[in-house]
Amino acid sequence: MPRYALKIEYNGAPFSGWQRQKGLPTVQLAVEEALRKLQPDFDGIQAAGRTDTGVHATGQVAHCDMTREWETFRLMEALNYHLKPDPVAIVDVAAVADDFHARFSARERRYLFRLISRRAPLVHDRGLVWQVRHPLDLAAMQRGANYLLGQHDFTTFRSAGCQAQSPVKTLDELRIERVDYPHGSEVRFHVRARSFLHNQVRSFVGTLERVGAGAWEPEDVREVLEARDRTACGPVSPPQGLYLAHVHYPERPFGA
Amino acid sequence: MPRYALKIEYNGAPFSGWQRQKGLPTVQLAVEEALRKLQPDFDGIQAAGRTDTGVHATGQVAHCDMTREWETFRLMEALNYHLKPDPVAIVDVAAVADDFHARFSARERRYLFRLISRRAPLVHDRGLVWQVRHPLDLAAMQRGANYLLGQHDFTTFRSAGCQAQSPVKTLDELRIERVDYPHGSEVRFHVRARSFLHNQVRSFVGTLERVGAGAWEPEDVREVLEARDRTACGPVSPPQGLYLAHVHYPERPFGA
Repeated sequence: MPRYALKIEYNGAPFSGWQRQKGLPTVQLAVEEALRKLQPDFDGIQAAGRTDTGVHATGQVAHCDMTREWETFRLMEALNYHLKPDPVAIVDVAAVADDFHARFSARERRYLFRLISRRAPLVHDRGLVWQVRHPLDLAAMQRGANYLLGQHDFTTFRSAGCQAQSPVKTLDELRIERVDYPHGSEVRFHVRARSFLHNQVRSFVGTLERVGAGAWEPEDVREVLEARDRTACGPVSPPQGLYLAHVHYPERPFGA
Repeated sequence: MPRYALKIEYNGAPFSGWQRQKGLPTVQLAVEEALRKLQPDFDGIQAAGRTDTGVHATGQVAHCDMTREWETFRLMEALNYHLKPDPVAIVDVAAVADDFHARFSARERRYLFRLISRRAPLVHDRGLVWQVRHPLDLAAMQRGANYLLGQHDFTTFRSAGCQAQSPVKTLDELRIERVDYPHGSEVRFHVRARSFLHNQVRSFVGTLERVGAGAWEPEDVREVLEARDRTACGPVSPPQGLYLAHVHYPERPFGA
Protein backbone atom coordinates (compact mmCIF):
# COMPACT_ATOMS: atom_id res chain seq x y z
CA MET A 1 0.00 0.00 0.00
CA PRO A 2 1.35 3.46 -0.81
CA ARG A 3 2.37 5.31 2.33
CA TYR A 4 2.22 9.10 2.72
CA ALA A 5 3.63 11.46 5.30
CA LEU A 6 1.41 14.43 6.21
CA LYS A 7 2.73 17.64 7.75
CA ILE A 8 -0.06 19.03 9.91
CA GLU A 9 -0.75 22.42 11.49
CA TYR A 10 -3.47 22.87 14.10
CA ASN A 11 -4.90 25.15 16.72
CA GLY A 12 -5.19 22.92 19.77
CA ALA A 13 -7.86 24.98 21.56
CA PRO A 14 -10.97 23.03 20.52
CA PHE A 15 -9.33 19.59 20.77
CA SER A 16 -8.70 17.09 23.54
CA GLY A 17 -5.16 16.67 22.22
CA TRP A 18 -3.87 14.67 19.29
CA GLN A 19 -4.71 11.11 20.23
CA ARG A 20 -8.04 9.45 19.52
CA GLN A 21 -10.17 9.05 22.66
CA LYS A 22 -13.67 7.66 22.63
CA GLY A 23 -16.29 10.40 22.53
CA LEU A 24 -13.82 13.32 22.55
CA PRO A 25 -12.86 15.71 19.73
CA THR A 26 -9.21 15.07 18.92
CA VAL A 27 -6.98 16.12 16.04
CA GLN A 28 -6.29 12.49 15.11
CA LEU A 29 -10.03 11.85 14.80
CA ALA A 30 -10.48 14.97 12.62
CA VAL A 31 -7.71 13.89 10.22
CA GLU A 32 -8.90 10.27 10.15
CA GLU A 33 -12.47 11.35 9.40
CA ALA A 34 -11.19 13.44 6.48
CA LEU A 35 -9.24 10.39 5.22
CA ARG A 36 -12.40 8.26 5.48
CA LYS A 37 -14.15 10.71 3.14
CA LEU A 38 -11.53 9.71 0.55
CA GLN A 39 -11.37 6.03 1.45
CA PRO A 40 -14.27 4.72 3.58
CA ASP A 41 -12.32 1.73 4.95
CA PHE A 42 -9.36 3.88 6.05
CA ASP A 43 -7.80 2.40 9.17
CA GLY A 44 -5.75 4.85 11.22
CA ILE A 45 -2.78 7.22 11.32
CA GLN A 46 0.31 7.43 13.49
CA ALA A 47 1.83 10.76 14.54
CA ALA A 48 5.28 11.85 15.69
CA GLY A 49 4.03 13.53 18.84
CA ARG A 50 0.90 12.96 20.92
CA THR A 51 0.26 16.58 21.87
CA ASP A 52 -1.91 17.32 24.92
CA THR A 53 -5.24 19.12 25.15
CA GLY A 54 -4.86 22.72 24.00
CA VAL A 55 -1.34 22.30 22.57
CA HIS A 56 -0.81 23.60 19.02
CA ALA A 57 1.27 22.36 16.11
CA THR A 58 2.88 23.97 13.10
CA GLY A 59 4.88 20.89 12.14
CA GLN A 60 3.20 17.71 13.41
CA VAL A 61 3.91 14.72 11.15
CA ALA A 62 1.74 11.63 10.68
CA HIS A 63 1.77 8.81 8.16
CA CYS A 64 -1.09 6.97 6.48
CA ASP A 65 -1.42 3.95 4.20
CA MET A 66 -3.79 4.38 1.28
CA THR A 67 -5.25 1.67 -0.96
CA ARG A 68 -4.38 3.61 -4.10
CA GLU A 69 -1.71 6.00 -5.36
CA TRP A 70 -2.37 9.71 -4.83
CA GLU A 71 -0.73 12.71 -6.42
CA THR A 72 0.54 14.40 -3.24
CA PHE A 73 -0.82 17.86 -4.07
CA ARG A 74 -4.27 16.40 -4.75
CA LEU A 75 -4.23 14.44 -1.48
CA MET A 76 -3.37 17.63 0.43
CA GLU A 77 -6.14 19.60 -1.28
CA ALA A 78 -8.74 16.87 -0.75
CA LEU A 79 -7.91 16.50 2.94
CA ASN A 80 -8.01 20.25 3.54
CA TYR A 81 -11.40 20.38 1.84
CA HIS A 82 -12.80 17.73 4.17
CA LEU A 83 -11.12 19.16 7.30
CA LYS A 84 -13.06 22.41 7.05
CA PRO A 85 -14.08 24.17 9.27
CA ASP A 86 -11.82 22.57 11.90
CA PRO A 87 -8.65 24.61 12.60
CA VAL A 88 -6.48 21.83 11.15
CA ALA A 89 -4.53 22.13 7.88
CA ILE A 90 -2.40 19.70 5.94
CA VAL A 91 0.49 21.90 4.85
CA ASP A 92 2.56 19.28 3.01
CA VAL A 93 2.25 15.68 1.78
CA ALA A 94 5.08 13.38 0.69
CA ALA A 95 5.17 9.83 -0.63
CA VAL A 96 7.39 7.78 1.71
CA ALA A 97 8.83 4.25 1.85
CA ASP A 98 6.89 1.41 3.50
CA ASP A 99 9.25 1.44 6.46
CA PHE A 100 8.85 5.16 7.20
CA HIS A 101 7.12 5.60 10.55
CA ALA A 102 6.13 9.09 11.71
CA ARG A 103 6.88 8.24 15.33
CA PHE A 104 9.67 5.68 15.24
CA SER A 105 11.66 7.12 12.32
CA ALA A 106 11.84 10.58 13.94
CA ARG A 107 15.34 11.61 15.02
CA GLU A 108 14.53 14.99 16.54
CA ARG A 109 11.54 17.01 17.70
CA ARG A 110 11.44 20.79 18.10
CA TYR A 111 8.97 22.68 20.24
CA LEU A 112 8.32 26.40 20.45
CA PHE A 113 6.79 27.94 23.57
CA ARG A 114 5.42 31.50 23.40
CA LEU A 115 5.16 33.53 26.62
CA ILE A 116 4.03 37.16 26.66
CA SER A 117 4.76 39.47 29.56
CA ARG A 118 2.49 42.51 29.70
CA ARG A 119 -0.13 44.13 31.90
CA ALA A 120 -2.88 44.76 29.34
CA PRO A 121 -5.05 41.83 28.29
CA LEU A 122 -4.14 40.15 25.01
CA VAL A 123 -6.14 41.07 21.96
CA HIS A 124 -4.78 39.37 18.84
CA ASP A 125 -2.87 36.51 20.49
CA ARG A 126 -5.55 35.19 22.83
CA GLY A 127 -5.29 31.42 23.12
CA LEU A 128 -1.98 31.40 21.24
CA VAL A 129 0.43 32.33 24.04
CA TRP A 130 0.79 32.12 27.81
CA GLN A 131 0.46 35.59 29.38
CA VAL A 132 2.05 36.70 32.63
CA ARG A 133 1.68 40.24 33.98
CA HIS A 134 5.09 40.76 35.59
CA PRO A 135 8.47 41.45 33.97
CA LEU A 136 10.84 38.55 33.33
CA ASP A 137 14.62 38.40 33.64
CA LEU A 138 15.61 36.52 30.50
CA ALA A 139 19.29 36.29 31.32
CA ALA A 140 18.45 34.54 34.59
CA MET A 141 16.03 32.23 32.75
CA GLN A 142 18.72 31.30 30.22
CA ARG A 143 21.21 30.61 33.03
CA GLY A 144 18.69 28.29 34.65
CA ALA A 145 17.89 26.66 31.30
CA ASN A 146 21.53 25.87 30.66
CA TYR A 147 21.56 23.41 33.60
CA LEU A 148 19.03 21.31 31.69
CA LEU A 149 21.12 20.85 28.54
CA GLY A 150 22.65 17.45 27.82
CA GLN A 151 21.79 13.98 29.10
CA HIS A 152 19.98 13.81 32.44
CA ASP A 153 17.47 11.84 34.43
CA PHE A 154 14.49 14.21 33.98
CA THR A 155 12.21 12.58 36.57
CA THR A 156 11.57 16.06 38.07
CA PHE A 157 10.17 17.33 34.77
CA ARG A 158 8.00 14.32 33.89
CA SER A 159 4.29 14.02 34.59
CA ALA A 160 2.94 11.18 36.73
CA GLY A 161 1.19 9.75 33.67
CA CYS A 162 4.32 9.58 31.50
CA GLN A 163 4.62 6.24 29.70
CA ALA A 164 8.28 6.50 28.62
CA GLN A 165 10.37 3.51 29.74
CA SER A 166 13.26 5.66 30.97
CA PRO A 167 13.37 9.19 32.45
CA VAL A 168 16.82 9.69 30.89
CA LYS A 169 16.74 12.01 27.87
CA THR A 170 19.20 14.26 26.08
CA LEU A 171 18.19 17.91 25.70
CA ASP A 172 20.00 19.40 22.69
CA GLU A 173 18.72 22.98 22.86
CA LEU A 174 16.77 25.25 25.22
CA ARG A 175 17.26 28.72 23.83
CA ILE A 176 15.32 31.70 25.13
CA GLU A 177 14.74 34.58 22.72
CA ARG A 178 13.08 37.95 23.35
CA VAL A 179 10.93 39.44 20.60
CA ASP A 180 9.97 43.04 21.34
CA TYR A 181 6.60 44.51 20.38
CA PRO A 182 5.47 48.10 20.78
CA HIS A 183 3.67 47.22 24.05
CA GLY A 184 5.45 44.38 25.70
CA SER A 185 7.66 41.57 24.71
CA GLU A 186 7.32 37.95 23.78
CA VAL A 187 9.60 35.29 25.16
CA ARG A 188 10.19 32.35 22.84
CA PHE A 189 11.59 29.08 24.14
CA HIS A 190 13.18 26.97 21.39
CA VAL A 191 13.47 23.42 22.68
CA ARG A 192 15.02 20.53 20.79
CA ALA A 193 15.64 16.84 21.61
CA ARG A 194 15.36 13.42 20.03
CA SER A 195 12.31 12.76 22.19
CA PHE A 196 10.58 14.18 25.25
CA LEU A 197 8.88 12.93 28.40
CA HIS A 198 5.21 13.75 28.97
CA ASN A 199 4.80 17.41 30.05
CA GLN A 200 8.58 17.94 29.87
CA VAL A 201 8.54 21.20 27.90
CA ARG A 202 5.68 22.70 29.94
CA SER A 203 7.48 21.68 33.16
CA PHE A 204 10.66 23.39 31.91
CA VAL A 205 8.79 26.57 30.96
CA GLY A 206 6.79 26.74 34.19
CA THR A 207 9.97 26.33 36.23
CA LEU A 208 11.98 28.84 34.20
CA GLU A 209 9.15 31.38 34.43
CA ARG A 210 9.61 31.25 38.23
CA VAL A 211 13.30 32.03 37.67
CA GLY A 212 12.41 34.92 35.34
CA ALA A 213 9.99 36.33 37.92
CA GLY A 214 12.74 36.27 40.56
CA ALA A 215 10.97 33.72 42.77
CA TRP A 216 13.67 31.11 42.03
CA GLU A 217 17.40 31.45 41.51
CA PRO A 218 18.90 29.99 38.30
CA GLU A 219 20.83 27.51 40.47
CA ASP A 220 17.55 26.17 41.87
CA VAL A 221 16.96 24.59 38.45
CA ARG A 222 20.07 22.45 38.86
CA GLU A 223 19.02 21.53 42.38
CA VAL A 224 15.53 20.33 41.39
CA LEU A 225 16.92 18.50 38.36
CA GLU A 226 19.36 16.63 40.58
CA ALA A 227 16.60 15.87 43.10
CA ARG A 228 14.91 13.57 40.53
CA ASP A 229 11.68 14.29 42.33
CA ARG A 230 8.48 15.35 40.56
CA THR A 231 7.31 17.32 43.60
CA ALA A 232 10.40 19.56 43.32
CA CYS A 233 9.30 20.84 39.88
CA GLY A 234 7.96 24.34 39.38
CA PRO A 235 4.36 24.77 38.17
CA VAL A 236 3.57 23.21 34.78
CA SER A 237 2.84 26.01 32.29
CA PRO A 238 -0.58 26.12 30.59
CA PRO A 239 -0.80 24.45 27.15
CA GLN A 240 -1.78 27.36 24.91
CA GLY A 241 1.78 28.67 24.43
CA LEU A 242 3.17 25.32 23.22
CA TYR A 243 3.68 24.40 19.55
CA LEU A 244 5.09 21.19 18.09
CA ALA A 245 7.18 23.01 15.50
CA HIS A 246 9.27 20.46 13.63
CA VAL A 247 10.03 16.75 13.42
CA HIS A 248 13.26 15.68 11.77
CA TYR A 249 13.69 12.44 9.79
CA PRO A 250 16.89 11.23 8.10
CA GLU A 251 14.85 10.81 4.88
CA ARG A 252 13.75 14.50 4.94
CA PRO A 253 10.42 13.56 3.33
CA PHE A 254 9.37 17.19 2.88
CA GLY A 255 12.68 18.42 1.50
CA ALA A 256 14.34 20.94 3.79
CA MET B 1 -10.45 69.08 33.12
CA PRO B 2 -7.46 66.73 32.99
CA ARG B 3 -7.04 65.24 29.51
CA TYR B 4 -5.56 61.80 28.83
CA ALA B 5 -4.38 60.11 25.67
CA LEU B 6 -5.13 56.39 25.41
CA LYS B 7 -3.21 54.01 23.17
CA ILE B 8 -5.64 51.28 22.16
CA GLU B 9 -5.26 47.81 20.63
CA TYR B 10 -8.24 45.89 19.30
CA ASN B 11 -9.36 42.97 17.23
CA GLY B 12 -11.83 44.48 14.79
CA ALA B 13 -13.69 41.24 14.01
CA PRO B 14 -16.66 41.64 16.39
CA PHE B 15 -17.02 45.39 15.87
CA SER B 16 -18.79 47.60 13.34
CA GLY B 17 -15.67 49.74 13.19
CA TRP B 18 -14.41 52.41 15.57
CA GLN B 19 -17.08 55.07 15.40
CA ARG B 20 -20.22 55.06 17.54
CA GLN B 21 -23.33 54.11 15.55
CA LYS B 22 -26.73 53.72 17.11
CA GLY B 23 -27.52 50.10 17.93
CA LEU B 24 -24.21 48.67 16.65
CA PRO B 25 -21.23 47.31 18.61
CA THR B 26 -18.30 49.63 17.97
CA VAL B 27 -14.90 50.02 19.60
CA GLN B 28 -15.67 53.63 20.55
CA LEU B 29 -18.80 52.49 22.38
CA ALA B 30 -16.86 49.77 24.23
CA VAL B 31 -14.22 52.23 25.43
CA GLU B 32 -16.81 54.89 26.35
CA GLU B 33 -18.83 52.35 28.33
CA ALA B 34 -15.69 51.40 30.27
CA LEU B 35 -15.06 55.12 30.95
CA ARG B 36 -18.63 55.51 32.19
CA LYS B 37 -17.97 52.78 34.78
CA LEU B 38 -15.32 55.14 36.20
CA GLN B 39 -17.26 58.36 35.70
CA PRO B 40 -21.02 57.96 35.04
CA ASP B 41 -21.37 61.36 33.34
CA PHE B 42 -18.48 60.72 30.92
CA ASP B 43 -19.18 62.43 27.61
CA GLY B 44 -17.21 60.99 24.67
CA ILE B 45 -13.81 60.28 23.16
CA GLN B 46 -12.11 61.30 19.93
CA ALA B 47 -9.79 58.97 18.03
CA ALA B 48 -7.01 59.48 15.49
CA GLY B 49 -8.49 57.09 12.94
CA ARG B 50 -12.05 55.95 12.35
CA THR B 51 -11.25 52.37 11.36
CA ASP B 52 -13.85 50.41 9.38
CA THR B 53 -15.75 47.26 10.29
CA GLY B 54 -13.32 44.38 10.82
CA VAL B 55 -10.16 46.52 10.77
CA HIS B 56 -7.73 45.98 13.68
CA ALA B 57 -5.51 48.33 15.63
CA THR B 58 -2.31 47.95 17.56
CA GLY B 59 -1.76 51.69 17.98
CA GLN B 60 -5.06 53.59 17.80
CA VAL B 61 -4.98 56.77 19.90
CA ALA B 62 -7.94 58.53 21.51
CA HIS B 63 -8.23 61.29 24.07
CA CYS B 64 -10.67 61.78 26.93
CA ASP B 65 -11.41 64.50 29.45
CA MET B 66 -11.93 63.33 33.01
CA THR B 67 -13.46 65.26 35.91
CA ARG B 68 -10.61 64.27 38.26
CA GLU B 69 -6.90 63.52 38.09
CA TRP B 70 -5.92 59.89 37.49
CA GLU B 71 -2.61 58.18 37.96
CA THR B 72 -2.09 56.97 34.37
CA PHE B 73 -1.24 53.37 35.30
CA ARG B 74 -4.38 53.11 37.45
CA LEU B 75 -6.55 54.55 34.66
CA MET B 76 -5.16 51.95 32.25
CA GLU B 77 -5.77 49.10 34.69
CA ALA B 78 -9.31 50.25 35.53
CA LEU B 79 -10.29 50.60 31.87
CA ASN B 80 -8.87 47.19 30.98
CA TYR B 81 -10.81 45.66 33.86
CA HIS B 82 -14.09 47.11 32.57
CA LEU B 83 -13.34 46.32 28.90
CA LYS B 84 -13.26 42.57 29.57
CA PRO B 85 -14.14 40.33 27.77
CA ASP B 86 -14.13 42.52 24.64
CA PRO B 87 -10.96 42.13 22.52
CA VAL B 88 -9.95 45.73 23.28
CA ALA B 89 -6.97 46.68 25.45
CA ILE B 90 -5.62 50.02 26.63
CA VAL B 91 -1.88 49.52 26.26
CA ASP B 92 -0.70 52.97 27.38
CA VAL B 93 -2.12 56.11 28.99
CA ALA B 94 -0.50 59.55 29.10
CA ALA B 95 -1.54 62.86 30.66
CA VAL B 96 -1.66 65.46 27.86
CA ALA B 97 -2.20 69.22 27.53
CA ASP B 98 -5.71 70.67 27.08
CA ASP B 99 -5.00 71.43 23.43
CA PHE B 100 -3.89 67.88 22.52
CA HIS B 101 -6.39 66.34 20.11
CA ALA B 102 -6.03 62.69 19.09
CA ARG B 103 -7.25 63.43 15.59
CA PHE B 104 -6.18 66.99 14.82
CA SER B 105 -2.78 66.91 16.55
CA ALA B 106 -1.68 63.79 14.64
CA ARG B 107 1.16 64.39 12.16
CA GLU B 108 1.45 60.88 10.74
CA ARG B 109 -0.44 57.61 10.66
CA ARG B 110 1.05 54.19 9.95
CA TYR B 111 -0.88 51.18 8.79
CA LEU B 112 0.23 47.58 8.47
CA PHE B 113 -1.51 45.20 6.07
CA ARG B 114 -0.89 41.45 6.40
CA LEU B 115 -1.44 39.21 3.35
CA ILE B 116 -0.67 35.47 3.39
CA SER B 117 -0.19 33.49 0.20
CA ARG B 118 -0.65 29.75 0.70
CA ARG B 119 -2.85 26.89 -0.44
CA ALA B 120 -3.72 25.32 2.92
CA PRO B 121 -6.39 27.01 5.03
CA LEU B 122 -5.15 29.26 7.84
CA VAL B 123 -5.09 27.83 11.32
CA HIS B 124 -3.55 30.27 13.80
CA ASP B 125 -4.01 33.51 11.83
CA ARG B 126 -7.67 33.20 10.89
CA GLY B 127 -9.32 36.60 10.91
CA LEU B 128 -5.96 38.35 11.33
CA VAL B 129 -4.73 38.36 7.71
CA TRP B 130 -6.04 38.31 4.15
CA GLN B 131 -5.31 34.96 2.51
CA VAL B 132 -4.83 34.38 -1.22
CA ARG B 133 -4.02 30.95 -2.66
CA HIS B 134 -1.72 31.90 -5.54
CA PRO B 135 1.93 33.01 -5.47
CA LEU B 136 2.73 36.73 -5.53
CA ASP B 137 5.53 38.57 -7.30
CA LEU B 138 6.69 41.00 -4.64
CA ALA B 139 9.19 42.81 -6.83
CA ALA B 140 6.42 43.66 -9.29
CA MET B 141 4.17 44.76 -6.43
CA GLN B 142 6.87 47.07 -5.07
CA ARG B 143 7.42 48.55 -8.55
CA GLY B 144 3.70 49.25 -8.78
CA ALA B 145 3.65 50.67 -5.25
CA ASN B 146 6.43 53.13 -6.05
CA TYR B 147 4.16 55.00 -8.49
CA LEU B 148 1.93 55.87 -5.52
CA LEU B 149 4.64 57.56 -3.43
CA GLY B 150 4.56 61.32 -3.03
CA GLN B 151 1.77 63.86 -3.49
CA HIS B 152 -1.07 62.84 -5.80
CA ASP B 153 -4.76 63.23 -6.42
CA PHE B 154 -5.85 59.81 -5.07
CA THR B 155 -9.43 59.92 -6.36
CA THR B 156 -8.94 56.42 -7.84
CA PHE B 157 -8.15 54.98 -4.39
CA ARG B 158 -10.91 56.73 -2.43
CA SER B 159 -14.29 55.21 -1.57
CA ALA B 160 -17.49 56.87 -2.68
CA GLY B 161 -18.32 57.61 0.96
CA CYS B 162 -15.06 59.44 1.70
CA GLN B 163 -15.65 62.69 3.57
CA ALA B 164 -12.21 64.26 3.09
CA GLN B 165 -12.35 67.75 1.55
CA SER B 166 -9.58 67.06 -0.95
CA PRO B 167 -8.45 63.87 -2.71
CA VAL B 168 -4.86 65.17 -2.72
CA LYS B 169 -2.66 63.40 -0.16
CA THR B 170 1.05 62.73 0.27
CA LEU B 171 2.07 59.10 0.64
CA ASP B 172 5.39 58.91 2.51
CA GLU B 173 5.96 55.14 2.50
CA LEU B 174 4.54 52.02 0.88
CA ARG B 175 7.06 49.32 1.62
CA ILE B 176 6.38 45.68 0.88
CA GLU B 177 8.21 43.11 3.02
CA ARG B 178 8.20 39.32 2.75
CA VAL B 179 8.25 37.28 5.95
CA ASP B 180 8.85 33.58 5.27
CA TYR B 181 7.24 30.83 7.33
CA PRO B 182 7.82 27.09 7.02
CA HIS B 183 4.69 26.71 4.85
CA GLY B 184 4.15 29.88 2.93
CA SER B 185 5.02 33.48 3.26
CA GLU B 186 3.44 36.60 4.64
CA VAL B 187 3.49 39.87 2.75
CA ARG B 188 3.52 42.96 4.94
CA PHE B 189 2.61 46.36 3.53
CA HIS B 190 3.99 49.23 5.62
CA VAL B 191 2.07 52.38 4.69
CA ARG B 192 2.72 55.84 6.10
CA ALA B 193 1.18 59.27 5.49
CA ARG B 194 0.00 62.31 7.39
CA SER B 195 -3.58 61.26 6.69
CA PHE B 196 -5.51 58.92 4.44
CA LEU B 197 -8.68 58.91 2.38
CA HIS B 198 -11.44 56.44 3.20
CA ASN B 199 -10.50 52.92 2.02
CA GLN B 200 -7.21 54.21 0.62
CA VAL B 201 -4.95 51.51 2.11
CA ARG B 202 -7.32 48.67 1.23
CA SER B 203 -7.64 50.08 -2.32
CA PHE B 204 -3.84 50.16 -2.62
CA VAL B 205 -3.48 46.59 -1.34
CA GLY B 206 -6.27 45.18 -3.51
CA THR B 207 -4.75 46.81 -6.59
CA LEU B 208 -1.18 45.73 -5.79
CA GLU B 209 -2.36 42.15 -5.14
CA ARG B 210 -3.55 42.11 -8.77
CA VAL B 211 -0.04 43.17 -9.81
CA GLY B 212 1.51 40.45 -7.62
CA ALA B 213 -0.79 37.84 -9.15
CA GLY B 214 0.31 38.89 -12.63
CA ALA B 215 -3.14 40.10 -13.71
CA TRP B 216 -1.90 43.72 -13.84
CA GLU B 217 1.43 45.20 -14.88
CA PRO B 218 3.21 47.50 -12.40
CA GLU B 219 2.74 50.36 -14.88
CA ASP B 220 -1.04 49.88 -14.71
CA VAL B 221 -0.88 51.34 -11.20
CA ARG B 222 0.44 54.62 -12.58
CA GLU B 223 -2.21 54.61 -15.26
CA VAL B 224 -5.15 54.14 -12.87
CA LEU B 225 -3.67 56.71 -10.46
CA GLU B 226 -3.48 59.25 -13.28
CA ALA B 227 -7.03 58.39 -14.40
CA ARG B 228 -8.39 59.92 -11.14
CA ASP B 229 -11.36 57.61 -11.57
CA ARG B 230 -12.71 55.38 -8.81
CA THR B 231 -13.94 52.79 -11.32
CA ALA B 232 -10.33 52.27 -12.53
CA CYS B 233 -9.25 50.99 -9.09
CA GLY B 234 -8.51 47.32 -8.45
CA PRO B 235 -10.70 45.41 -5.97
CA VAL B 236 -10.71 46.75 -2.41
CA SER B 237 -9.01 44.20 -0.13
CA PRO B 238 -10.98 42.70 2.77
CA PRO B 239 -10.57 44.41 6.15
CA GLN B 240 -9.10 41.62 8.29
CA GLY B 241 -5.49 42.17 7.18
CA LEU B 242 -5.46 45.87 8.09
CA TYR B 243 -4.02 47.28 11.33
CA LEU B 244 -3.81 50.92 12.42
CA ALA B 245 -0.29 50.54 13.77
CA HIS B 246 0.95 53.93 14.92
CA VAL B 247 -0.06 57.58 15.20
CA HIS B 248 2.66 60.16 15.54
CA TYR B 249 2.30 63.42 17.51
CA PRO B 250 4.95 66.11 17.91
CA GLU B 251 4.42 65.89 21.70
CA ARG B 252 5.22 62.12 21.70
CA PRO B 253 2.77 61.59 24.58
CA PHE B 254 3.79 57.94 25.04
CA GLY B 255 7.54 58.54 24.85
CA ALA B 256 9.11 56.79 21.87
